[in-house]
Amino acid sequence: MSVSSLDQLCVNTIRTLSIDAVQKANSGHPGMPMGIADVAYVLWTRFLKHNPENPDWVNRDRFVLSAGHGSMLLYSLLHVSGYDLSIDEIKKFRQLGSKTPGHPENTVTPGVEMTTGPLGQGFATGVGMAMAETFLASSFNTPDYSVIDHFTYAIVSDGDLMEGISHEAASLAGHLKLGKLIYLYDSNRISIDGSTDLAFTEDVAKRFEAYGWHIQTIDGHNHDSIEAAITEAKDVHTQPSLIICKTHIGFGSPNKQDSASSHGSPLGEEEVILTKKQLRWEADELFHVPDEVVQQFRSWSDAGSEMEEKWKETMKDFEADHPELAVSFKNAIHHQLPVNFEELLPVFETDETGLASRKSSGLVLTELKEHLPNLIGGSADLTGSNNTELKDKGIFTPNNRTGQNVHYGVREHAMAAAANGMALHGGVIPYTGTFFIFTDYMRPAIRLGALMETPSIFVLTHDSIGLGEDGPTHQPVEHLASLRAMPNVTVIRPGDANEVAYAWKNALERTDGPTLLVLTRQNIPTLPRTTANAASLTERGAYVYRDTKQTEPEAILIASGSELHLAIEAQNELLEQGVNTRVVSMPSWELFQQQDKAYQESVLPSSVIKRVAVEAGSTFGWERWVGSEGKVIGMDTFGESGPYKQLYEHFGITRQAVIEAVLNL
Amino acid sequence: MSVSSLDQLCVNTIRTLSIDAVQKANSGHPGMPMGIADVAYVLWTRFLKHNPENPDWVNRDRFVLSAGHGSMLLYSLLHVSGYDLSIDEIKKFRQLGSKTPGHPENTVTPGVEMTTGPLGQGFATGVGMAMAETFLASSFNTPDYSVIDHFTYAIVSDGDLMEGISHEAASLAGHLKLGKLIYLYDSNRISIDGSTDLAFTEDVAKRFEAYGWHIQTIDGHNHDSIEAAITEAKDVHTQPSLIICKTHIGFGSPNKQDSASSHGSPLGEEEVILTKKQLRWEADELFHVPDEVVQQFRSWSDAGSEMEEKWKETMKDFEADHPELAVSFKNAIHHQLPVNFEELLPVFETDETGLASRKSSGLVLTELKEHLPNLIGGSADLTGSNNTELKDKGIFTPNNRTGQNVHYGVREHAMAAAANGMALHGGVIPYTGTFFIFTDYMRPAIRLGALMETPSIFVLTHDSIGLGEDGPTHQPVEHLASLRAMPNVTVIRPGDANEVAYAWKNALERTDGPTLLVLTRQNIPTLPRTTANAASLTERGAYVYRDTKQTEPEAILIASGSELHLAIEAQNELLEQGVNTRVVSMPSWELFQQQDKAYQESVLPSSVIKRVAVEAGSTFGWERWVGSEGKVIGMDTFGESGPYKQLYEHFGITRQAVIEAVLNL
Repeated sequence: MSVSSLDQLCVNTIRTLSIDAVQKANSGHPGMPMGIADVAYVLWTRFLKHNPENPDWVNRDRFVLSAGHGSMLLYSLLHVSGYDLSIDEIKKFRQLGSKTPGHPENTVTPGVEMTTGPLGQGFATGVGMAMAETFLASSFNTPDYSVIDHFTYAIVSDGDLMEGISHEAASLAGHLKLGKLIYLYDSNRISIDGSTDLAFTEDVAKRFEAYGWHIQTIDGHNHDSIEAAITEAKDVHTQPSLIICKTHIGFGSPNKQDSASSHGSPLGEEEVILTKKQLRWEADELFHVPDEVVQQFRSWSDAGSEMEEKWKETMKDFEADHPELAVSFKNAIHHQLPVNFEELLPVFETDETGLASRKSSGLVLTELKEHLPNLIGGSADLTGSNNTELKDKGIFTPNNRTGQNVHYGVREHAMAAAANGMALHGGVIPYTGTFFIFTDYMRPAIRLGALMETPSIFVLTHDSIGLGEDGPTHQPVEHLASLRAMPNVTVIRPGDANEVAYAWKNALERTDGPTLLVLTRQNIPTLPRTTANAASLTERGAYVYRDTKQTEPEAILIASGSELHLAIEAQNELLEQGVNTRVVSMPSWELFQQQDKAYQESVLPSSVIKRVAVEAGSTFGWERWVGSEGKVIGMDTFGESGPYKQLYEHFGITRQAVIEAVLNL
Repeated sequence: MSVSSLDQLCVNTIRTLSIDAVQKANSGHPGMPMGIADVAYVLWTRFLKHNPENPDWVNRDRFVLSAGHGSMLLYSLLHVSGYDLSIDEIKKFRQLGSKTPGHPENTVTPGVEMTTGPLGQGFATGVGMAMAETFLASSFNTPDYSVIDHFTYAIVSDGDLMEGISHEAASLAGHLKLGKLIYLYDSNRISIDGSTDLAFTEDVAKRFEAYGWHIQTIDGHNHDSIEAAITEAKDVHTQPSLIICKTHIGFGSPNKQDSASSHGSPLGEEEVILTKKQLRWEADELFHVPDEVVQQFRSWSDAGSEMEEKWKETMKDFEADHPELAVSFKNAIHHQLPVNFEELLPVFETDETGLASRKSSGLVLTELKEHLPNLIGGSADLTGSNNTELKDKGIFTPNNRTGQNVHYGVREHAMAAAANGMALHGGVIPYTGTFFIFTDYMRPAIRLGALMETPSIFVLTHDSIGLGEDGPTHQPVEHLASLRAMPNVTVIRPGDANEVAYAWKNALERTDGPTLLVLTRQNIPTLPRTTANAASLTERGAYVYRDTKQTEPEAILIASGSELHLAIEAQNELLEQGVNTRVVSMPSWELFQQQDKAYQESVLPSSVIKRVAVEAGSTFGWERWVGSEGKVIGMDTFGESGPYKQLYEHFGITRQAVIEAVLNL
């Protein structure tokens, strides 16, 4: 093994910081940082292009610790590299309010690219980062200027590779020939339950070859091998790279190395002493970072800082030589939408027949695509059904890196994670499409996007029994409730084409979390509008679509999406019967909850307790808006296969049911 | 191509039935049945051991149509084979109330083994069926009797193989060397968006070789090749088999064969005529089934019927020679629990310190394992944390098929689907384990289990911020709400060790859907009990744990799981302050909702509107129980990393908060 004593000191600093932090917290995972420290050290001091003084430099290499439980590895690297992460924060590992939570979180710690912990997510999210990189590079680089040119690295674990999402993402990355994606696989042959032989005996190299990846297998403790492998991987331009690093989990621990006991628990005080002895470390030196180690890492950080300075200089020349491209680049990077953005939205004429909201969504995209050159979207093999195509904007392929249409294949989970990755990378506006029911397949990635505050947009069509014949396997019932319950997700289920336009506006303007657009398969009327019920009110989450009299209504009908027109029809009949009702369109609970109390009260006055909500989905949660006295018309069973109008009748989601509910109150 | 004219007639009957049904419904997927008809025909008339007169024969081969959108293939096969599926039902394809819904549903149509449609599910569920088969075969077969001995076949599609769950399941099946699993891959190179080249260019054969599967590639229209391949696959005993069948989607359609246009839409009347002409079929003969075709299929069905008769004879001898084993077998097959089942449950002594409900769950399993020899469970690499191990019951491996502990690896999604498959197969009681947060990873399989009414049991530990330091990536918030919203799922979050015992009882006795046991990482007290608040009341979903006075309470506290004891402590203090409160333990909304109104009213009297619910999770939906006047103490943001007691304080889920909420009402 060719490791100089300084190198050894650096690696052991990472190891001992990890050991000490986990021991002090009495909680955490020491084994992985100890095992992969050599690989991480070589990457972080010989390859990784980054500037700890500016973690947001857009042209930095991206580093993802997909195996997020090894968070102390990353915190140790960030600390010694000079990121804003003090030794005091390291000492507060896993404590409330620290910058060193149990798993890395991009919203908490400078230098953490993404939140990881749920296995496989980092693997798939990195693919999105690499996609964004190559899209931007092809969009903005010129023969004389390299504006965007960086690698995406990740450390991935056995657990990552067992998760299904790793398959989807790896297959996609191989298909897309993402040459600047380099993953280092920490092959330590140990999982929580014990040896990976218990459950994981596949031939990983062969599997990834089948995906079209470039494979190398190395000793993960040999620095020369690590350096040579990364160098080779960088030179492979038409394949993503997997470097299989054979490592020893808990490296250096006399009794716990190569054992599951080092995986998820502190080593224990006694074993810490023994391990430090084996690593030739002073046992009583806690959280010790030798000066020469700091120097070693900082000299690389300084080089990174210089690289950014040089890049900035280049950018000045680029601006001078390519002023329009430079403006376009800045707009992209800063998520700057056109100034007259609202005016660009299509306006749909009143139309009783109307059109499916998935179709109006497609028309909005068609309108916006000329103004948003960094929009990059796609569907999980339902492009035509989801109406997600940006016509004439090309397909994103190895030969056309500026194509704005991604064919994700039937890979919903990787698609959602890739969109997270693109949003994290910045410079592009990612959206995805599938049937609403298949949010179940991408739920972990939607949740992680919400936690990471990534503004990706989900086009989710076929939103209820309204999809008809495909039946209960395809009919969402509980999905609205289950996603409204998720923190920091904006769910919008627009009630007509003009609400769709403003739903898109809201989604595109959002910068701190995902937006889900929930759209119909079937036609819905495009409703008449005045200033009083302008479609822009969609952005307030709920609004009075129509009162029948000037006086306070006797009852309120609340509806979303395809049931809005049904509520309006009921309102008409109720008026004939002398009942003064209000119709409230409620496309988004979350947006409404963000309004001030006065607005909320103006839409849903507390004094009116006769309330009926109607939505072709689970009634779950609607008590919040209708109150104890109210009534919810919806369904709490699975759907059925049949023509959709019959299904609405069958499940009792009808104008008549709304009318009766009001009259019964 | 060596296809006799009778064979051709049979295959074209399947094709034309599918074409006609889709055309009549004006909805559906004709291309896949047309393309794979040859393969299906050979399988169904030369190999599949089944008896259409008894679709429930336990020793039948299992056939899964993983690509459920090709439902007309299956309906055609069932009809011509003589299952209880008339031509009139075929004519009602995709109509409300028919036995021929858009995607196959096991609860609707005799002979449909499982509900399919969401891609990848059939692939992974079949793995569970094969696991159950080999477990039962090894448990009950003797040198002289073969009680269980059958194959599990599936037809899988490009879409199935793109889904991540196919990776998890295939890797697991290869690891487990499931030799009696034979999958026929309909490789037609067409997906909804167009050529699979758009998104799916991996080397499938190599990928599956990497998993340890046996691979063959054949012309999927050559009957001899199909027969030879299945014969060879049956002879491979230590590897699952993938037979890659090269087919033409929409086979026979002059203008739509090999095109995405035949995938998901009717051919159109004109093309139907042209196709029938090409298939040498009378264009005006709709839903035509020639007599000789019926004879051909029925002669195979008769053979199946004879096989079952013979098996029944064998079983009589088996009963005579191995009476105890035979009783055990019957109990297993009929989901017969021990007669004194309730008495077998452990009783936990009152204990203020108590123990984590994941631990009491483990103790319940330890108690029950000696009485339930067909319990087969495992965890997604969290065995120790989930307390799911059946000690001394062995690990399920290729060399130990009677092991009751399955190491699923970090493959939550395939695990859940495999459990569905085992439950569908029958004869075993499957349970699985992971962290509650990772229900997100297996949500499509949980939902499908609910739809299929499969009684699998999910042990879901680390159920809230109570898990502490692992932080927001691991802390469920919205998960209780999101799963309570799902139809036909029973969610039980027991409040102490004795509630855990009855939660297990309820789960084990359920036969018509999945049960989710939601358990703590942290200790919770074991509560004192009398006859009035016996733990058996857990099965009613909610019950009065304690009143402080004989009179009607002024306020009601409702709590589940780890917050039950917190409510009780608040109740004590409120009594000191002269407030008469009731504590209701509510481990399961679903079970409570199944009670009659009188019982519900006795627990939550309408007259008491001052209600406070407390649960360490999203407040979403709790308005149902506390009403408009009530208050919910919970959280609607993501969690944080830190010691759990600090987190409870931080998020305001405290005894004091409960007390104040009551006093404020």
